Amino acid sequence: MDKMIIYLPIVLAVLGLIYMFVKQQWVMKQDAGDGKMKEISDHIYEGALAFLNAEYKLLAIFVVIVSVLLAIVSLVVPTTHWLIVVAFIFGAVFSAFAGNIGMKIATKTNVRTTQAARTSLPKALNISFGGGTVMGLGVAGLAVLGLTAFFIFFFHFFMGGVWTNTMDMTIVLETLAGFSLGAESIALFARVGGGIYTKAADVGADLVGKVEAGIPEDDPRNPATIADNVGDNVGDVAGMGADLFGSYVATVLAAMVLGNYVIKDMGGNIGEAFGGIGPILLPMAIAGVGIIISIFGTMLVKISNNEAKESQVMGALNKGNWTSIILVALACFGLCKYMLPETMQMEFFGEGLIQISSMRVFYATLVGLFVGAVISSVTEYYTGLGKKPILKIVQQSSTGAGTNIISGLATGMISTFPSVLLFAGAIWASYALAGFYGVALAASAMMATTAMQLAIDAFGPISDNAGGIAEMSEQEPIVRERTDILDSVGNTTAATGKGFAIASAALTSLALFAAYVTFTGIDGINIFKAPVLAMLFVGGMVPVVFSALAMNAVGKAAMEMVQEVRRQFRDIPGIMEGTGKPEYDKCVAISTKASLKEMMLPGLLTIGFPLIIAFVPMLFGMNHLAIAEMLGGYMAGVTVSGVLWAIFQNNAGGAWDNAKKSFEAGVEINGKMTYKGSDAHKAAVTGDTVGDPFKDTSGPSMNILIKLTCLIGLVVAPILGGHTEEGYAEVTKEISVENNITINKDNAEATVTYTTIVNGEEVIKKETFTGTKAQVEAKLKAFEAANDVARDENVKTIEKIEINKS
Amino acid sequence: MDKMIIYLPIVLAVLGLIYMFVKQQWVMKQDAGDGKMKEISDHIYEGALAFLNAEYKLLAIFVVIVSVLLAIVSLVVPTTHWLIVVAFIFGAVFSAFAGNIGMKIATKTNVRTTQAARTSLPKALNISFGGGTVMGLGVAGLAVLGLTAFFIFFFHFFMGGVWTNTMDMTIVLETLAGFSLGAESIALFARVGGGIYTKAADVGADLVGKVEAGIPEDDPRNPATIADNVGDNVGDVAGMGADLFGSYVATVLAAMVLGNYVIKDMGGNIGEAFGGIGPILLPMAIAGVGIIISIFGTMLVKISNNEAKESQVMGALNKGNWTSIILVALACFGLCKYMLPETMQMEFFGEGLIQISSMRVFYATLVGLFVGAVISSVTEYYTGLGKKPILKIVQQSSTGAGTNIISGLATGMISTFPSVLLFAGAIWASYALAGFYGVALAASAMMATTAMQLAIDAFGPISDNAGGIAEMSEQEPIVRERTDILDSVGNTTAATGKGFAIASAALTSLALFAAYVTFTGIDGINIFKAPVLAMLFVGGMVPVVFSALAMNAVGKAAMEMVQEVRRQFRDIPGIMEGTGKPEYDKCVAISTKASLKEMMLPGLLTIGFPLIIAFVPMLFGMNHLAIAEMLGGYMAGVTVSGVLWAIFQNNAGGAWDNAKKSFEAGVEINGKMTYKGSDAHKAAVTGDTVGDPFKDTSGPSMNILIKLTCLIGLVVAPILGGHTEEGYAEVTKEISVENNITINKDNAEATVTYTTIVNGEEVIKKETFTGTKAQVEAKLKAFEAANDVARDENVKTIEKIEINKS
Repeated sequence: MDKMIIYLPIVLAVLGLIYMFVKQQWVMKQDAGDGKMKEISDHIYEGALAFLNAEYKLLAIFVVIVSVLLAIVSLVVPTTHWLIVVAFIFGAVFSAFAGNIGMKIATKTNVRTTQAARTSLPKALNISFGGGTVMGLGVAGLAVLGLTAFFIFFFHFFMGGVWTNTMDMTIVLETLAGFSLGAESIALFARVGGGIYTKAADVGADLVGKVEAGIPEDDPRNPATIADNVGDNVGDVAGMGADLFGSYVATVLAAMVLGNYVIKDMGGNIGEAFGGIGPILLPMAIAGVGIIISIFGTMLVKISNNEAKESQVMGALNKGNWTSIILVALACFGLCKYMLPETMQMEFFGEGLIQISSMRVFYATLVGLFVGAVISSVTEYYTGLGKKPILKIVQQSSTGAGTNIISGLATGMISTFPSVLLFAGAIWASYALAGFYGVALAASAMMATTAMQLAIDAFGPISDNAGGIAEMSEQEPIVRERTDILDSVGNTTAATGKGFAIASAALTSLALFAAYVTFTGIDGINIFKAPVLAMLFVGGMVPVVFSALAMNAVGKAAMEMVQEVRRQFRDIPGIMEGTGKPEYDKCVAISTKASLKEMMLPGLLTIGFPLIIAFVPMLFGMNHLAIAEMLGGYMAGVTVSGVLWAIFQNNAGGAWDNAKKSFEAGVEINGKMTYKGSDAHKAAVTGDTVGDPFKDTSGPSMNILIKLTCLIGLVVAPILGGHTEEGYAEVTKEISVENNITINKDNAEATVTYTTIVNGEEVIKKETFTGTKAQVEAKLKAFEAANDVARDENVKTIEKIEINKS
Repeated sequence: MDKMIIYLPIVLAVLGLIYMFVKQQWVMKQDAGDGKMKEISDHIYEGALAFLNAEYKLLAIFVVIVSVLLAIVSLVVPTTHWLIVVAFIFGAVFSAFAGNIGMKIATKTNVRTTQAARTSLPKALNISFGGGTVMGLGVAGLAVLGLTAFFIFFFHFFMGGVWTNTMDMTIVLETLAGFSLGAESIALFARVGGGIYTKAADVGADLVGKVEAGIPEDDPRNPATIADNVGDNVGDVAGMGADLFGSYVATVLAAMVLGNYVIKDMGGNIGEAFGGIGPILLPMAIAGVGIIISIFGTMLVKISNNEAKESQVMGALNKGNWTSIILVALACFGLCKYMLPETMQMEFFGEGLIQISSMRVFYATLVGLFVGAVISSVTEYYTGLGKKPILKIVQQSSTGAGTNIISGLATGMISTFPSVLLFAGAIWASYALAGFYGVALAASAMMATTAMQLAIDAFGPISDNAGGIAEMSEQEPIVRERTDILDSVGNTTAATGKGFAIASAALTSLALFAAYVTFTGIDGINIFKAPVLAMLFVGGMVPVVFSALAMNAVGKAAMEMVQEVRRQFRDIPGIMEGTGKPEYDKCVAISTKASLKEMMLPGLLTIGFPLIIAFVPMLFGMNHLAIAEMLGGYMAGVTVSGVLWAIFQNNAGGAWDNAKKSFEAGVEINGKMTYKGSDAHKAAVTGDTVGDPFKDTSGPSMNILIKLTCLIGLVVAPILGGHTEEGYAEVTKEISVENNITINKDNAEATVTYTTIVNGEEVIKKETFTGTKAQVEAKLKAFEAANDVARDENVKTIEKIEINKS
């Protein structure tokens, strides 16, 4: 039985996809409303498809280029198998397909939600959340299916389906990393490109429509209005989906890599149970079970009262979410107990092997679940309506845009305090419990509810769109009121979803970072080496520059949009009277093209920097392991700085947004009720303008930046790092004592110069011993003894040992 | 002769101070103008003194508290000598005294510059730059005098004035670190408190005066106007002076510490030349010679043409600056050649001992001089009037404050790109040339021209004040025109000065970081250990939160000021008609009190975090060396993130400021000339409001944060790290093999559990050997041999060695 468990995640993933399909059919069967509603919805649907098609074309080119590069690498580097190319392509295709499912269902669900809201709020929630569920299960199901299927395939291909040794499994997992790289590449396009698209369309529509032509938001006469609505789906649905797809796959992969090293630390064999790969299977099993738990969780999300308010809707979502989290905790308990050896040995840096019980691994998963839950509350505190930080920004708006902006920036900056302490505590705790395997499993447990998180997340923009459609098709006020309730809850879940996404990206990157170190075989990343420290600086800088480029990209893309809208207002007769039809598709095309063009530079920065650090020093003949350590420093810099800038930008943006929204219901400033249209409100609008690219473009892009950086590192690792086709690095030594100086009467010194050949490269090392003559002689003896045997795993041949004592 | 060179820096410092005194007398002898000018100037002078006195009171309390803490530490920790308390107090007093000299001369020079500008521009430059020179020489002279005098005293006190061994010198330098800590503590008050003061007064004066009462800037009827002018001196003169004083001392100290380790790497003795301490003396000698060179440089700064424009004034400053830099390079060549052994051995991580010629150390100093010069150009590019980034912000102002702010933020963010690459390149190059000693000497060489840099820097706010006095005392337009030329050049030098300050802080911190690692005796900082990685995250977060707190502090302090100004307008009869006299001193008192109160929280954050990281885990019995490594991770996080946020905030703030100023002369936007008062200008003013606390409060505060963090680490190092009073850590060992498991037929495993006693604390360590039985036995033998002798420097007694082989 326990040998069959390898197929369990596939079965669970397929079950999830079947449920998704059923749910999808159910949503599609719902009433899509009357003529005008349908027309608007169709425009959004077509616009979304247009973006996807354009994106796919660009993606296809990108995938071909990277595939060729990977193929060349697999030809040149003996440890990299060509199957990595296949895994890469499938990773990209699966992620794109998941995004496609999500976008399609989201753009079909919106109008059905509007229609349902005409009669019933519970039904409207049911449908909009149903759309979200389809999206969530599509992402989670395809992620687990793809990853597991490839793992089983590679496990059979490279190892014949039975445990042989750690090295073979390393090859399996290195090849599997291609799948993850493919998935994350799509995320780059979806999250960064999508983030630029959504804000460019938004700004473009507002600038010409609201400001120049003086027509309201979502007015069908505005040629950019469809692009604006498409943008919501592109950014919040497809972008978020691809982001979490990437995190999900990368987290599970990293946990598998570290599971393999647990087996290594235990002597390379843990017996027959679960084919001898229990620690490697565990993260996949948790992911699979998480899908089923998420399905159950989504079933709990419903309300019965047609007069329900925000708090009841939020309560329904919370019920489903918390139930999922608790069930995942229970499942982790069972799976850890069932699949792991009761006691494991794990190597801790500087502490040697430590006995770790399976229960400690379980506790580590609890840490992950805790972080996932708490980061949402932290995010909500700093960005939630009516919370102290927002009220403060509102107060500061009364003295102008300047103070509003300072206050918003400060809020975003201060919000890094609890968030980073939470992450730091989580790293520490999960590591103390079960090493980096614990860190990776904490991330895996947190990500197990991905389907549920995405359902909650995607429901927001669907409701937002539903409200927009209600407005555009001039429904009765009650319809808008109902969709507004859903939309308002959706705004909160959007902020907490961003918190979850950054937490997942942070933990994923850490797990990948740990996997990278073990892959390369370096003994840690020592920032006291100046080149490593220099790369830590460079890595820290990249997220800052990336953010700036992303923000500038929004500005440039928006200007192209503005020009097109102006042209249409000028050239199409009767457009303002409603008799001429605006060319929505041209606006969609322009912002599609502009956003994909503008994402090139930040994308290049993301991919280019790690490759330059890895390969340029190689041309100058630098030691590979030294390069690996530098690249590790770079990865750490990007991760630390990226997490900080993500939290800062997301929360500042969210805070400004809600400070502005506060004016809709009216706020009390200096004892006076203040509303929309006041000077303070205008200041808050300015703040929101700054916050928009923060929270929708550059902030969320950080997730991709840090994950992709660490994944590129992981894929490059075999080229840099510690093993060849046969096993570990081929290290040969030639040892000779160069000189032996006596300085003072009691101070002797001996310098041993030896040549170590690592992967065919000569590395000259020196070791110096000082002390009394007797001490130096003893040290030389010890050195001899140590070199005879201490590195036996690495040393293939010791060509010559000559020690001349004076 | 070469034994006397230890006294050379003192002699040069005293010469510098004598020249300063002469120059001071000369400035004071200049005509201070007529009644009204003198009255205004006196107000500013008294206000500045009021701030200094209030600061000194708080400082005295702070110094007493820290002294008591240090005294307790010196009682408890055998390696910390009580003289560190004395050094600390003197460091604080010297820095405060230097600040005092600077503030006094600056507030006396301003009115004399105005008076001189009535007749001659060359004379006005001569006087304002003369005031700056006094400031620069005061700081540099006192820094070198204090540090050198204490070094000589400790060298004689602990070592009898002759070289004994590295350990004794470590005690000398550890005690000397107290001086540096004292200096940097003052910088905390001067830079952070001063930064809050200057912006609180500025905002408070503008908000009530300009906006509410509708009177122009610098109007004597505004009670806050004197506070505003005092603020310029407090922030730009005293703050910058204390900042560079701290950098100067810390850099030289760090270089001395690393020089000591060069001697250690060379076997603990380099012969008789220069008392056997050439590498330790070298940084002091460079600093001393730098003072004389700076004096010479300042002499070159003059113009003869009364009709000179900005470019000629800038040219005169550049001539002096570049001459100083070139002369320092020549001096470094001579001193390196003269004072260092022709070849040294230096320990490089993972590469063993490497032969380094004295010329390579010289090349490292060139790297430092290069960085100092280039960072100024980079800063000028991103913040200079008429440069591309500024023109872009100006263009973006036409679409409102939102786009202006996004553009300014993006400019600041992108400016981190060349700056960080420059720093990273400098770290790499200077380390490759001469290890961390090279990094520290690069910093020392850069700081050698501190007196010159400060002269250029202080000249700006003096000219600014001179212009203000001309305005307030209603001089003829030509006077204001002349001071405006000086002020305009001063704005440029203010920006480049900030670049120099952050570059110096960054290199200083790196040097301190390296000194910390060598002090604690840890073998590097490995971020692959989770607790270290967690602290890297926490360290990265602190500058972000610090910046937010500083910005909020400005807001709070400004509000207190606003209330006082409102009260005076209400309560003092005839104030608006000019018949009632405003109570300037009350405003000065309020902003003094508020700024010092508001700096508490960020100050506490700076000092508290490293102490918590160092001492809380100690309470839980954590291994001291592990704590040392964690604290190192924290320091690296603070440095990397702090440098990034300093560059970002300084340059964004500078860019917004000059974008706003561009409107004064008029700018072309979309083909139309646009001036002050336009909507675009209003948007630019909003940007400047955000930029003000960025560039004058939170940005420059980062310098102090990163240096103080690393200095606290350095002072704490002896408590955490590797040596006791006698020498190295008292490490005793008890070794016993706990178990010896045979897993498979060919896999044997032996676990050696041993107790290491480090400074009286038991640390349990494990080492595991695996392999075939024969291999394991051989490994055990090697382990035995290695422990017998390999650590002889650390091992005092081996109590028991029992190895049971099964």
